[in-house]
Amino acid sequence: MKVHLVHAHSESDSFVAAMRDTIIAAFTSRGDTVTVSDLYAMNFNPVSGPHDFGQRADPEHLTYALEQRHGFKTGTLAPDILAEIAKIQVADIVGFTFPLYWFGVPAILKGWIERVFISGTFYGGKRVYAKGGMAGKRAFSAFSLGGRDYMFGKDGIHGELAMGMMKGFFQGTLGYVGFTVHHPYIGYHVPYLPLEERQAALTDVAAYIETLEDQPVFTMPDVDDFGPSFEVKRG
Amino acid sequence: MKVHLVHAHSESDSFVAAMRDTIIAAFTSRGDTVTVSDLYAMNFNPVSGPHDFGQRADPEHLTYALEQRHGFKTGTLAPDILAEIAKIQVADIVGFTFPLYWFGVPAILKGWIERVFISGTFYGGKRVYAKGGMAGKRAFSAFSLGGRDYMFGKDGIHGELAMGMMKGFFQGTLGYVGFTVHHPYIGYHVPYLPLEERQAALTDVAAYIETLEDQPVFTMPDVDDFGPSFEVKRG
Repeated sequence: MKVHLVHAHSESDSFVAAMRDTIIAAFTSRGDTVTVSDLYAMNFNPVSGPHDFGQRADPEHLTYALEQRHGFKTGTLAPDILAEIAKIQVADIVGFTFPLYWFGVPAILKGWIERVFISGTFYGGKRVYAKGGMAGKRAFSAFSLGGRDYMFGKDGIHGELAMGMMKGFFQGTLGYVGFTVHHPYIGYHVPYLPLEERQAALTDVAAYIETLEDQPVFTMPDVDDFGPSFEVKRG
Repeated sequence: MKVHLVHAHSESDSFVAAMRDTIIAAFTSRGDTVTVSDLYAMNFNPVSGPHDFGQRADPEHLTYALEQRHGFKTGTLAPDILAEIAKIQVADIVGFTFPLYWFGVPAILKGWIERVFISGTFYGGKRVYAKGGMAGKRAFSAFSLGGRDYMFGKDGIHGELAMGMMKGFFQGTLGYVGFTVHHPYIGYHVPYLPLEERQAALTDVAAYIETLEDQPVFTMPDVDDFGPSFEVKRG
């Protein structure tokens, strides 16, 4: 299998970087090939805007999604965007390693999504969820946070994490473009872990990758439950 | 009242820019004073990292939240961060105008939050939600999207929007740091609106601001319902 990993942490001695290296080793030992977009190391520009387009369908008024389609068709999208799209297109599995910031992905990763998950190729019109452009590919993620596991879930102070606080990422982004989305590996309380617990967590990360096919996946909305413009069907 | 508006759209002829101008006019005509952080116009850097700190408490290993506290105490945080914090500290009301990207705030605004909402000043330890650093201030937002209103809510294909897809922003960010968080103004289907409907929407934005005190607010978790480390109380 071909795996592409998108990594978003500034520090090479971080737990997230150790997760990245553990994940690469676990896939490699299975015989899979792994490529990495290390967003901080690449100095990736996360700001979406008119600079993303070398040539405009409408030079007067910017409609971002329409220019994405035009830019991809004409090959005039910014080269850094085209390079990232090419990596995703050849991958069977796409993974994300990051620290949780404000119950979401870091800005540098959020902007990577905005610029790379272009209209037309990743989604479009009625082609979302199971009909999205990434249908047939799988996505996973491994992230760290300071909080403890009991703070989340139905009874926790913050409620559900992945499909609660982070629903915009797991459903609204990864599921929306068609990925089969595995439950994430979550490293709780990372800044406060003693070294042996940090090592144990990395062993868990390796096991998560080794058994990725068996990891549960999130249920996404079924577009066929809705009308042709996604209107609610009245029974 | 002092209002600070954080604006995140690259285009000066956008609906979001028109919302910003409508909001400024509505507050000004009430006698309130409005300041604006126009993130694209400021070329605001949304990437959080070691460059945020002029002087480090720990030069070896970066713990971002701890360095935020150290940097604020010593006045060595990056000047662009200190300038934004100062604007928020004097404001009674903080507002956000942006286009919805991937069911969340644009990366340039996500990174503004990561760099500006510093540990210690905005939250810390047990000081979250009603005990957060922004307690006593109010927050509002006005955003645009392409989708239609029937796609959201309990029966819609994407589920709830503000406290569903965007829960990480409304609860996990604004509520978490203590703001009283008003329901947002949501401009649905904006790229496809005929001019007269766009004008009508701006009239609604003005009315939203004129009646802001009466706009409903989101209910946040009550920290007193949980134990001293936010553990779930067993009945």
